[in-house]
Amino acid sequence: MAKLWVRFLLGGLALLVAIGYKKYGELAAPGKRPDLDNNAYWGPKLKGPYRENKAILPLDISVKPEVIEDLRSQLSRPSKAQPPLEGVAFEYGFNANELAKMIKYWRDTYLVKWNEREQYLKKLDHFQTEIQGLKIHFIHAKPSQVKGQKPKKVLPLLLMHGWPGTVREFYDFIPLLTTPSDKSDYVFEVIAPSLPGYGWSQGSSKTGFGVAQAAVVMRNLMLRLGFEKFVVQGGDWGSIIGSNVASLFPENVLGYYSNICGNHSPLGQIKMSLEWIFPSWFVDSKYTDFYKGLGHHVNTILEEMGYAHIQASKPDTIGNALIDNPAGLAAYIIEKFSTWTNPSYKSLPDGGLTKRFTYDQLLDNVMIYYLTNSITTSMRMYSESMVASQFALNVDGVPITAKAGCSRFVHEVLHTSDSVLANKFPNLIHSTYHSDGGHFPAFELPQQLYDDFIIYIQKAEF
Amino acid sequence: MAKLWVRFLLGGLALLVAIGYKKYGELAAPGKRPDLDNNAYWGPKLKGPYRENKAILPLDISVKPEVIEDLRSQLSRPSKAQPPLEGVAFEYGFNANELAKMIKYWRDTYLVKWNEREQYLKKLDHFQTEIQGLKIHFIHAKPSQVKGQKPKKVLPLLLMHGWPGTVREFYDFIPLLTTPSDKSDYVFEVIAPSLPGYGWSQGSSKTGFGVAQAAVVMRNLMLRLGFEKFVVQGGDWGSIIGSNVASLFPENVLGYYSNICGNHSPLGQIKMSLEWIFPSWFVDSKYTDFYKGLGHHVNTILEEMGYAHIQASKPDTIGNALIDNPAGLAAYIIEKFSTWTNPSYKSLPDGGLTKRFTYDQLLDNVMIYYLTNSITTSMRMYSESMVASQFALNVDGVPITAKAGCSRFVHEVLHTSDSVLANKFPNLIHSTYHSDGGHFPAFELPQQLYDDFIIYIQKAEF
Repeated sequence: MAKLWVRFLLGGLALLVAIGYKKYGELAAPGKRPDLDNNAYWGPKLKGPYRENKAILPLDISVKPEVIEDLRSQLSRPSKAQPPLEGVAFEYGFNANELAKMIKYWRDTYLVKWNEREQYLKKLDHFQTEIQGLKIHFIHAKPSQVKGQKPKKVLPLLLMHGWPGTVREFYDFIPLLTTPSDKSDYVFEVIAPSLPGYGWSQGSSKTGFGVAQAAVVMRNLMLRLGFEKFVVQGGDWGSIIGSNVASLFPENVLGYYSNICGNHSPLGQIKMSLEWIFPSWFVDSKYTDFYKGLGHHVNTILEEMGYAHIQASKPDTIGNALIDNPAGLAAYIIEKFSTWTNPSYKSLPDGGLTKRFTYDQLLDNVMIYYLTNSITTSMRMYSESMVASQFALNVDGVPITAKAGCSRFVHEVLHTSDSVLANKFPNLIHSTYHSDGGHFPAFELPQQLYDDFIIYIQKAEF
Repeated sequence: MAKLWVRFLLGGLALLVAIGYKKYGELAAPGKRPDLDNNAYWGPKLKGPYRENKAILPLDISVKPEVIEDLRSQLSRPSKAQPPLEGVAFEYGFNANELAKMIKYWRDTYLVKWNEREQYLKKLDHFQTEIQGLKIHFIHAKPSQVKGQKPKKVLPLLLMHGWPGTVREFYDFIPLLTTPSDKSDYVFEVIAPSLPGYGWSQGSSKTGFGVAQAAVVMRNLMLRLGFEKFVVQGGDWGSIIGSNVASLFPENVLGYYSNICGNHSPLGQIKMSLEWIFPSWFVDSKYTDFYKGLGHHVNTILEEMGYAHIQASKPDTIGNALIDNPAGLAAYIIEKFSTWTNPSYKSLPDGGLTKRFTYDQLLDNVMIYYLTNSITTSMRMYSESMVASQFALNVDGVPITAKAGCSRFVHEVLHTSDSVLANKFPNLIHSTYHSDGGHFPAFELPQQLYDDFIIYIQKAEF
């Protein structure tokens, strides 16, 4: 109740004043690496001292048939969803009529061929190891070489998804990375973990596990696997956690590449604010399509950021509302694959969901959240990262000295220009604009993302 | 992902600039009553012309036993909720351990005595009539008189709840209103409707049904019942819809009383903003406890307004996630009865839920949402009211000329001082501060609310 926008207004003003008090010099100075405990224990309370089990074991992701049967029975409950308002597509969120269709498909088609879907998910190799008290899952995809040809140089790549994604986003992208290509002198050994608290990776039992702490775990995973030097790539939280890895561990990171580079350093925030108000100060006129100005951003905050607001403040309430609730989980998750792929899809009766994805792809992704019961722990990434104690670490203020590459796909929620990125990425060697695609390019346009990434890698000459 | 507060910051700045452009005189001028269609049809699409069925019929709110049985079976599913983080109570939202206890109570105690609960809900008289295409439910409680004593003057009272409330909030309050008291020359004939889209009242099938449109329906309901002149009272949306009734229909409204008076006129918003920054300019030093300044409000926006953000933007997604999901619905709704009753309850392991309410009271309220399947339609009140087309009506800018009374209970989310209220309430005859109580005083402290209300009524001399 009461009007939210007034509260945004005042919240914004307060923050602006707070920032205004800081001196520019102080803002522009690079931050120092915070002193994080690289061995912090995040698992459940122990009776004795912690002994990390360093074994790296294959993980069987098979699902018991009774779990699928139970899911089918839940999806068979008659829908009580309220019909959408007349003439409404996805403007009010997930359209109930379309949800009913998707549930029917899920129950009557997808689950019937679950064995096939499960085999598909198993076609990449899954492993698990224990890091800092957390069981961490990852896909390990080794590169191939072509017989009789000069072997490609192998680069280890830490590839990270975000919310509400999973490793499923990378199933078409990973084979491109591991297969030698004429376009590239390199081939990749890919480690694609489930983020802690996501999918098959255990979530922290303790408060204070945000992006910086996740970055420590991810780097420890790479060290465990024997990769002292590696390239980092990610989108969404994977981009931010990757940025934390690169900021905290320059000694390990050869390069950083993301399809949603951001600069959340104090200076970066101010520059980004100005960019929103005066895009022409920052942006080449060729790319004005990517920078729609303040009104667009305010609308985006109001219309599209509610999920982040509630997840950052009440993750356990919204998590508990989605636990063991497959239809609700699908609506909540898959809505993002409509709007974030292309905001104009909101006005399509089916949310444009099948324009870029198949129902199978979208449901595979939901199934991972459902089967691993990870929606609550996934949402805690918001509460633990969008909080004063995390901001106080100021990892964002630490420049990434590794060679960096930033690609932009036009329908992404928010773009950041090179001039705004500058103080965070002093070594930005690659910056591109794509007139297609949205928030999930590895899932939506894997070839295009690969082609862009490879250009970056060739430039970097690692 | 990406930091939300920067977006608030810019959103706020933009709105401030937009408001700054308006001239003060223009802002201070009272708004004009907008031209609303008092007979607009909001029901489902019709083949022929609409003929309103004006019958006023008793409504049987009985529930079929199989519905209760089905609910019991849903509540019997083993909980898959993730445990809360170590040491966390309700700071991350509804605590999963407490939720498990509540679900157990619901299933094993509450539902077992459902007949008793149903009889309790039936102890007030329920009716239904059709207004503008919507079936509208209301409680009609007639006043009693004491034999042999001078009859009390009878005042019709339109009493409105909000979100996530129902008429259940008023079960202890209504008997106080309808029973003659030594303290009062008045006794009340109470009409307590379920808001359109809430409880047993049908929601609109069409877009554009916000607080002003709801106010038209509520006034038409009073006219239907033969009340040309009446007093309006409410909390939460009931307060805002009541404010709309009083602004749009001064010819019908004798008085307006609320426990959360607000002033959302353009001038009011600016004054309120200044009040947040400089409370001492506006507030008597006696009441500084009620006005905690900007930092507090920014925190409140960030920590407590996520629900409103998502409900205003994606009501159908979050609604679909809670439909036919009793455990999730309880967590989502009852969380508010912790934090809004007293924000410090967040740090109590049980959310302080039973400090002021019983589980039966809280579950009665959830049951109404569950049984009437109304969570989605209730949430649309946010999307339809917090939107440019609704603001453009500027009902907020129309002063309420009726005699007004405003009470404040200390733990309410936000208080507005008399000086901020002034241009909206030129006839504010009663203004009080209570050192106890929160957002649901009719539910929590019915006697105290009644006593305050009666003082207002005595002053008003209707």
